[in-house]
Amino acid sequence: MKSELICVGTELLFGKLNTNAAYIGERLSTIGLDLSFVTSVGDNSDDMFEIFKKALDRSNIIIITGGLGPTFDDITREVAAKVLGRNLKINHEILNIITKYFNGRNIYMPKENERQAYIIDGAKIIKNQTGTAPGQCVEIGSDTKKLLFLLPGPPREMQPMFENDVFPYFENLQKEIKKSFILHICGLPESVVDEKIKPVIDNYRVLNSGGVNFTILAHDMIVDIKVSAAGTDEISINKTLDAIKQEFYSLLNENIFGEDSQSLEDVVGSILAKNKKTIAVAESCTGGLLSGKITSIPGSSEYFKEGIVTYSNEAKVRYLGVKEETLKNFGAVSEQTAAEMADGLRKISGADYAASVTGIAGPSGGTPEKPVGLVYAAISGENIKHVIRLVLPGNRNEIRERTVNKVLDFLRRQLYEAIYSNKYSR
Amino acid sequence: MKSELICVGTELLFGKLNTNAAYIGERLSTIGLDLSFVTSVGDNSDDMFEIFKKALDRSNIIIITGGLGPTFDDITREVAAKVLGRNLKINHEILNIITKYFNGRNIYMPKENERQAYIIDGAKIIKNQTGTAPGQCVEIGSDTKKLLFLLPGPPREMQPMFENDVFPYFENLQKEIKKSFILHICGLPESVVDEKIKPVIDNYRVLNSGGVNFTILAHDMIVDIKVSAAGTDEISINKTLDAIKQEFYSLLNENIFGEDSQSLEDVVGSILAKNKKTIAVAESCTGGLLSGKITSIPGSSEYFKEGIVTYSNEAKVRYLGVKEETLKNFGAVSEQTAAEMADGLRKISGADYAASVTGIAGPSGGTPEKPVGLVYAAISGENIKHVIRLVLPGNRNEIRERTVNKVLDFLRRQLYEAIYSNKYSR
Repeated sequence: MKSELICVGTELLFGKLNTNAAYIGERLSTIGLDLSFVTSVGDNSDDMFEIFKKALDRSNIIIITGGLGPTFDDITREVAAKVLGRNLKINHEILNIITKYFNGRNIYMPKENERQAYIIDGAKIIKNQTGTAPGQCVEIGSDTKKLLFLLPGPPREMQPMFENDVFPYFENLQKEIKKSFILHICGLPESVVDEKIKPVIDNYRVLNSGGVNFTILAHDMIVDIKVSAAGTDEISINKTLDAIKQEFYSLLNENIFGEDSQSLEDVVGSILAKNKKTIAVAESCTGGLLSGKITSIPGSSEYFKEGIVTYSNEAKVRYLGVKEETLKNFGAVSEQTAAEMADGLRKISGADYAASVTGIAGPSGGTPEKPVGLVYAAISGENIKHVIRLVLPGNRNEIRERTVNKVLDFLRRQLYEAIYSNKYSR
Repeated sequence: MKSELICVGTELLFGKLNTNAAYIGERLSTIGLDLSFVTSVGDNSDDMFEIFKKALDRSNIIIITGGLGPTFDDITREVAAKVLGRNLKINHEILNIITKYFNGRNIYMPKENERQAYIIDGAKIIKNQTGTAPGQCVEIGSDTKKLLFLLPGPPREMQPMFENDVFPYFENLQKEIKKSFILHICGLPESVVDEKIKPVIDNYRVLNSGGVNFTILAHDMIVDIKVSAAGTDEISINKTLDAIKQEFYSLLNENIFGEDSQSLEDVVGSILAKNKKTIAVAESCTGGLLSGKITSIPGSSEYFKEGIVTYSNEAKVRYLGVKEETLKNFGAVSEQTAAEMADGLRKISGADYAASVTGIAGPSGGTPEKPVGLVYAAISGENIKHVIRLVLPGNRNEIRERTVNKVLDFLRRQLYEAIYSNKYSR
């Protein structure tokens, strides 16, 4: 069974990130329903017609997002109806809901919004609780049924509709059992991870050519390995996946920081939360992004005490008590300054641990001795005081993002050692 | 002339954001070369074969990214060669470069990396200065030439190769002149923007059915309008676009905050830089993201003084001098607390302006009086003291991102008034 996603919107062709594709792909992969293709197409009826038609030919499940809005360039309804050879009809119940939506919010309803009440003949309506455009689900054929879903493009409308009405449908549909796990690694380059795990992969390839599938991916200093297995015997699938996971753990050890949806900030947060410890963060080159990542976790107010973005030398002295001589003798980007930032912040914040990061994100400010990408990070706490030096590749934003990940990984390792007195605790 | 992009990598089908598509789409759109399709496909030879073949049928320019790495699942070279009916041959010069790359970095070269030296018969080599996999460019046919580009997937390898060897090629290729502009709007909902500009759009549709194209897009409280015009007479294209832009400005006024690649943080930064003013930021619910956005601009150290993430009440009192009675009487998320945070930070930082933001990002912590999504933001400075109240929809991360944009827009408007004594200055 093949499934695919089509995302409609010219913006996706001229620079907008396709977050719907990431969301839907991730959710479907959790139930082993992997997309074969994701296509972005503009608000152009010929191109839309071509790809809608092709998708109906080659796939059993087609999800289309976007182009259901009220504006002139929203034509998904019309093109889908044309490809299917069906009519569009106004649905007065939906029109009523849309009108009420506007009245209830005391907003004037533009005439254009009426277009959102048109439904493809024979389609089931998927209710939209956060917006005005309903989704639609069309069954095609009688024997080998195909399914076409139309969903709105804005994530806050699409996501609840997907979760309430689309995902459960697929969950019930899956007959072949497919399971998977992802391991997240920080601290080894992709090519080294690849070489380490290759004998395992080759072995499973020989044993079982179709059932087990491996993918590997590097992004911002993190390497992900995804392993999936399919079949009809759940016990044997679980056994296979468990055995592979054990082998990977024994090859990669403490470099594996998490599984599946776990992020570095999750792991750091859960070590702190479990041990009722708090952390404070002083940042320079990352400008608030490290605090931003840590506080992206719901409930992080339990362990995140405070953050300071000391961009200027003067702020490093005033808030953190970094010594002026240190800045003069070693510079703002130095082991010594990083250490004093962390020590100073720990004192004033009263947090159990304080982390600091100072570096050169570029594009300017680099020298032969201290190039763009040079970063020092420190942690200060009971039983612990440590500084690392990193040299990271990339442009300004890549260096900032990579620094955040490497510093979170540094914190993870240091906190394990400080709290559990070992390198690694699962 | 049709062009399309194919991004290879199973990770793009199970949740990875496709940043290469955003990058390439944005760059090509600046020279009026709009992609017709962007397809993500997994590391699966059948699916790759199908989409490569389809692309060669329907498009003149095909860019393929990804699948050129050294690992087992990197098969773009092989599949492209098969679709073209050409052989792959090892290139000893490239093999030499790859070997030197590893030796120069004192890293052991895995045997697998040799695969990266295989080149499609007749392909031109595109040098990779930041990694090991070279790109390839294949010309197909003699009369109506088609072009196939293979580029590596990692952005830091792909981007410089695209800029040095691919983009200039397209720039020279473009015969029909196509120009465009984008207007960025904050402060009006998408449907209101749409209704305001609709008469202009309808007018141009009647006058000139094919030449002018409009798209509209909303994301995180920002609405973008893109207008493009094509033809052979540059003067007339410029005139048309200028006229449309003027009409849009007179309809949307100060709600337009920028054009083309300008972001809210660019605009806020440039007002401060031009006037040699500094800003400091105190954040609660956004946890560092507002400082992170402001400091994403190169050179922001000129005007960004410091940031404080006061997540706890105690930190709001200790760093910012918020009164304990204020917190007790009105709560941490209140007009009064926001105002005291900004006033306090302005005093201690010595910055010309201080901004603050406090709110409830959720998922927990909301009450009927103070729901999730409630945010107060304040600015304090010479001639200025103002607080706004926002109620933003979305999940935790959406609320945080939207808050950052709305607060940046608030700062933009307040700084214009304080510095230029008018609502809007272009």
